[in-house]
Amino acid sequence: METFTTHGGRLGEARRRFGGAVEPWIDLSTGVNPRPYPARPASSRARARLPDPEETAALETAAAAAFGVGADAVLATPGVEAAIRLLPGVLRAPRVGIVEPTYGGHAEAWRAAGAVVSGIDRKVLADAADTCDVIVLVNPNNPDGETFAAEVLLEVAGRAESRGGWLIVDEAYVETSPEISVLAHLGDAWRASRLIVLRSFGKFFGLPGLRLGFVAARPDVIGRLRSRQGEWPVSADAIAAGLQAYPDRPWADQTLRRLAADARRLDDLLIRAGLNVLGGTSLFRLAAADDAQGRFVRMAEAGVLTRPFDHAPTWLRLGLPDPDNWPRVEAALMESAP
Amino acid sequence: METFTTHGGRLGEARRRFGGAVEPWIDLSTGVNPRPYPARPASSRARARLPDPEETAALETAAAAAFGVGADAVLATPGVEAAIRLLPGVLRAPRVGIVEPTYGGHAEAWRAAGAVVSGIDRKVLADAADTCDVIVLVNPNNPDGETFAAEVLLEVAGRAESRGGWLIVDEAYVETSPEISVLAHLGDAWRASRLIVLRSFGKFFGLPGLRLGFVAARPDVIGRLRSRQGEWPVSADAIAAGLQAYPDRPWADQTLRRLAADARRLDDLLIRAGLNVLGGTSLFRLAAADDAQGRFVRMAEAGVLTRPFDHAPTWLRLGLPDPDNWPRVEAALMESAP
Repeated sequence: METFTTHGGRLGEARRRFGGAVEPWIDLSTGVNPRPYPARPASSRARARLPDPEETAALETAAAAAFGVGADAVLATPGVEAAIRLLPGVLRAPRVGIVEPTYGGHAEAWRAAGAVVSGIDRKVLADAADTCDVIVLVNPNNPDGETFAAEVLLEVAGRAESRGGWLIVDEAYVETSPEISVLAHLGDAWRASRLIVLRSFGKFFGLPGLRLGFVAARPDVIGRLRSRQGEWPVSADAIAAGLQAYPDRPWADQTLRRLAADARRLDDLLIRAGLNVLGGTSLFRLAAADDAQGRFVRMAEAGVLTRPFDHAPTWLRLGLPDPDNWPRVEAALMESAP
Repeated sequence: METFTTHGGRLGEARRRFGGAVEPWIDLSTGVNPRPYPARPASSRARARLPDPEETAALETAAAAAFGVGADAVLATPGVEAAIRLLPGVLRAPRVGIVEPTYGGHAEAWRAAGAVVSGIDRKVLADAADTCDVIVLVNPNNPDGETFAAEVLLEVAGRAESRGGWLIVDEAYVETSPEISVLAHLGDAWRASRLIVLRSFGKFFGLPGLRLGFVAARPDVIGRLRSRQGEWPVSADAIAAGLQAYPDRPWADQTLRRLAADARRLDDLLIRAGLNVLGGTSLFRLAAADDAQGRFVRMAEAGVLTRPFDHAPTWLRLGLPDPDNWPRVEAALMESAP
């Protein structure tokens, strides 16, 4: 089970483990928009040369405009996971507190860099700023969708700042609830603060295979991250897709409505199948059932991969099916009851 | 001039600086095969999901077979530059010696991580192993094409090892002289040694826009680098291209012959244009002329971007033109004489 409780997207292992399953597999184990942005691939010419730094800069400018910040405050990375891994080398913090439960990559990244990592209960978040050099939280949180108000984040950042600390807010899933982005709330004020925000391209735009993420922070921090990361961080295809997708508001607005409707549809299905919906975002739903791990196995035997959790054996997280797959997902969910 | 002496590939800046130039520009400022491997792009499905770790592992296995090492000794990275940036965080060496002149990214990466970096003359390489925690060299070297014999590298690695040091051999350009790869020479012996080898996909296969590189090292080092790098390091397109290209020996053999012939043709041209050919590899040639920086400017004004060097103002490095561009490159070179 550990393969499946560490990260989603392990279809190869699922195929071997639950061999007789119907093909094709339906992968609901990640929180990725199942109807991707229709980005044109990079040209053959662009693939055949190093990305010009000016093209990477144009991508950062387009992303910054979408995030509501200045272009000098944004760094492109090959996926938000790469951004997570880049921070410990620059911030060099001995004590790191992470609001848990959440995405496991943060703790892995800080531990690999030698930091002492402790879990923080969200209820005592502000106090943690007095004892940690870095606080990490995910907003909205994965897997439960819990959110933090901008005022709370400001207070925590202020307390962290008074002792030279940092607050890292991972907004990998914020596109479906843009109103809670701390970047959108603070205007230019955040640029003077010790606040670092992570953003993902692949989840909302449905193209995680391109590997594209971003860090937003004050320009001196971005400069240090940039010199640490080195040249040509993202591919020609990532640049091409980001330049097309970020300015396309009509697609984003239509997608927000569709994802919200699909999330409600999935909630209805989960309830009818006897699960309790605990929360989530419009890109994934978290549900609870006494026999969640048994349901995980039975759905996998029907070719539907979901996401179980070792720290919470009653939980299952499900991404949204793509349009053709609703009937099979419904059948698998209904038949997963013990 | 500094923009152009730091890295190649700055076409945007060149267009602005040398505005009246003929379009399209011919970029000879990098050492990339101008006839790329005809890789099919990743499928839409592969772009729309996270790469399964088993796909990344299959890519590493294909690359390892091409390098002549075991699959457990190879890590894929989003470009060799990313590999260069990954090493300081894992090796944590205070004193680093780099055989110079060479690619500047190595010194940048170690300095950004806080190491004291000194340049090493290749003639006293073996002695440096007694005073440096890490030695870095590029084989064949960029920009001069100088090579190190495997026996010399073995001796240096042995001396580094006796004091707990490391030898990093950047083989980014080794594909056109595979016989000098230290991996090919040492068989399984290198797996027990403190030798780390970097490889590039984009240069020989002509697809640097995909961002794909590799580290080869003993499995415990690969494990530490892997946990430091995190999940899903390379894109679906990089995986697809590597899986197609590495096993394709007929394409590689034909390409080796063509590149060697094109490199001879470029040498003839350089000599006829009054430059001295100093060396290089079959992917780039290094030439000298009294007025190299003037030639750089005049060629740029004709829309041909080459690579000057601040530490050696008489040098110019030129990549190979693609088949259609030889006449313009010939004219620009001939007319670049003072």
